[in-house]
This record gives sequence, structure tokens and C-alpha cells, in this order.
Amino acid sequence: MARKGETTRQMIVAAAAPIFNRRGYEGTSMQDVMEATGLEKGGLYRHFSGKEELAAEALRYSLRQSVKLRIEHVDGGHGALALLRSLVKRFVEKPSSMPGGCPLMNTAIDSDDDNPTLRGLVHEALRDWRMRLIKVIGDGIRNGEIKTETVPREIANTIIASLEGALMISRLDGNRVALTDAQKSLQVLLDRIAAE
Amino acid sequence: MARKGETTRQMIVAAAAPIFNRRGYEGTSMQDVMEATGLEKGGLYRHFSGKEELAAEALRYSLRQSVKLRIEHVDGGHGALALLRSLVKRFVEKPSSMPGGCPLMNTAIDSDDDNPTLRGLVHEALRDWRMRLIKVIGDGIRNGEIKTETVPREIANTIIASLEGALMISRLDGNRVALTDAQKSLQVLLDRIAAE
Repeated sequence: MARKGETTRQMIVAAAAPIFNRRGYEGTSMQDVMEATGLEKGGLYRHFSGKEELAAEALRYSLRQSVKLRIEHVDGGHGALALLRSLVKRFVEKPSSMPGGCPLMNTAIDSDDDNPTLRGLVHEALRDWRMRLIKVIGDGIRNGEIKTETVPREIANTIIASLEGALMISRLDGNRVALTDAQKSLQVLLDRIAAE
Repeated sequence: MARKGETTRQMIVAAAAPIFNRRGYEGTSMQDVMEATGLEKGGLYRHFSGKEELAAEALRYSLRQSVKLRIEHVDGGHGALALLRSLVKRFVEKPSSMPGGCPLMNTAIDSDDDNPTLRGLVHEALRDWRMRLIKVIGDGIRNGEIKTETVPREIANTIIASLEGALMISRLDGNRVALTDAQKSLQVLLDRIAAE
């Protein structure tokens, strides 16, 4: 019974995640989630105390899906710079698996003023992403691949900023040009930090 | 009387703009605007057919304010590269005058799925910004300042993507580090396209 409850809970989260991602916290109602899952109000509130708890679980789910898509099977076999290029390439080719675009950006914009729980989750996801890149760049400095004067945080922030900003432009333009443009510029930056 | 009506209309737009920018289209009600302006429902609807018309006017206002802040008095006296550096510097120092952050990014994220009017306005603002940068870069190529093999659109998209993405990071982090990091990386890119 506990297992069946957990399965239902996970099913609700998976169904709610793309709705919250597309419409935002304010734009999503428990009614929308009831319609998407076919559950009655009682069924939904048996699993979640309310919209806030469900939105937080849905965001955790969306962020996990994003991270998975962005790092799974990325080829890291040929050093730090090759890994950074592969991570950029992956983002450009598969920016998001979730309808509505990148959950990090969506929630950062949607929640920056008045939803501390969601904002906290998305800030944590940003810090994780940045720390992962900083570690790769640090490894590259230590093994002599990357110039010692490189500031890992600067490069990590630039990679994230360029990719997320390019995704926004790309969605407005309705094509992938801004993403491949960002990839080319990041290539220039990564060539520039390569040790001679 | 017509003049008084126009003044009231402009006052409503100026009061509604930061509300829509912070809370988004879905998160803002005509009630919120009534409270902010002190107008009754009848007073509000005398000037606007409804939320959609008011939101569009408010967005036009916010975008105009942003553009003004980002280009006004920017020093363009020393060639194309100096102008690009000044425009980047201005954005990093004064990313937005509007409570709630950049109206372009906010509306792009908020409206990408289901609000074609607002999405159209923000796409137009993006294209204007990009065309302005492309023109500066094209001038730099023609006057021999910038390498002829440079693709202006690539550089323009990268500048916009880096700055907008960095602003998102910066707002999450609660500091300006990501913006100055993006500025440094854009500096590297601009040095790289400078003719030898």
C-alpha cells in the first residue's frame, strides 16, 4: 500500500512538472494538475499538502531531468577542455527535455521576487552546475591543460550565462542560431584559456 | 479633457509596468493595478479594454525604459570596439531600472508558450537590440577596426546571451559577480575580433 502510494505520488509529480515548467507557479492551479492526472481533489491532497509542496517536488523532478540530459553519456575521456566542449555541445544540441524550456531559467525568472522555496531550489541547482564546471576547469589547471592564471569561476559563470541566455534568444527566434553562435564564442574562449 | 485622459492613461501604464514586470502576466490582476493607481474599476476600463491591452502597453513602456537606460549617454566617440565595450559596461553597471529585472527576459520566459502579443513585442525588442549591435560590428569591419572574417550576428547574439544569462545568475546569487565575469569574457572575445 505504501509502495502504491509512492508510485501515485511519483506519477503526480511527473505529470505536474511540465505544467509548472510551462505556466509557472502563479499560472498553474491544482485544478490543472487534477485534469492532467485524472485524480479528484481528495486524491491529490492525500499526497501533497498543497500547491507549494507539489510545485517544489515538480521543480526537483524537472531539475533532475535537466541535469541528467545535460551530463549523461557526455564524453569525458580526453581531458578537461574536451569535456567542457562536450558539455557545451550537449546543451546546444539538447537544451531541455521539458516542455516550456529550461526549468532553471524559468523558475529563476518566475520566482525571483516572491517564492523563496522555489528560488532556493533553483539557486542550489545553479550552484551545483557551476561547481561541477569549476571542478573540471580546476582539474585542467592542475594537469597543465589550462593556463594557471585562469579563474575557474569566471569561465564557469560565462559558460552558464551564454548557454542560458542563448536558449532564451533561441526560443524567441524559433531557431537554434543563437545556441550555435554561443557555442562558437565559447569555443574561442576555451581556445584562449588552453595552455600553450 | 483629451489631454487629461492621456495623462491618466500614461500614469496607469507607468504604475502597471513594474507590477507586470515583477509578477508576470498571469500573476498580475486588474485589482493589483487598481490598488497601485487608486482608480476604481470603471476608471481603469475607461482607458484599457482589459488586462491584455494594459499588459501590452506596460511592456512597451518597460522595454523603452530598459533601452533608454542601456544606450543613453553611452560613449561612442572612439570607434566600434570602444562602443561595444561601453555598451557591455553599461549593462553590467545598470542592468535594469525596473523592479523585477530585465523586462525582455522576464517576458520572454513568461510568455513563450501562450501569449503571442507579449511574445511579439519582446521578440521585436530583441531584434532591435541585435540589429543595433550588428550595425556597430559591421561599421567596425568596414572601417578596418574589426577582422573581416567576423560574423556580426555571432558576436551580437553572444553579447546579448552572455549579458542576459549573467543577469539571471546575478539575481539568483544576489550579487554582481556573474555580470563582471561575463564582462571579462566578452572583453576576451572583443580583443579576439580586433584587427591586428
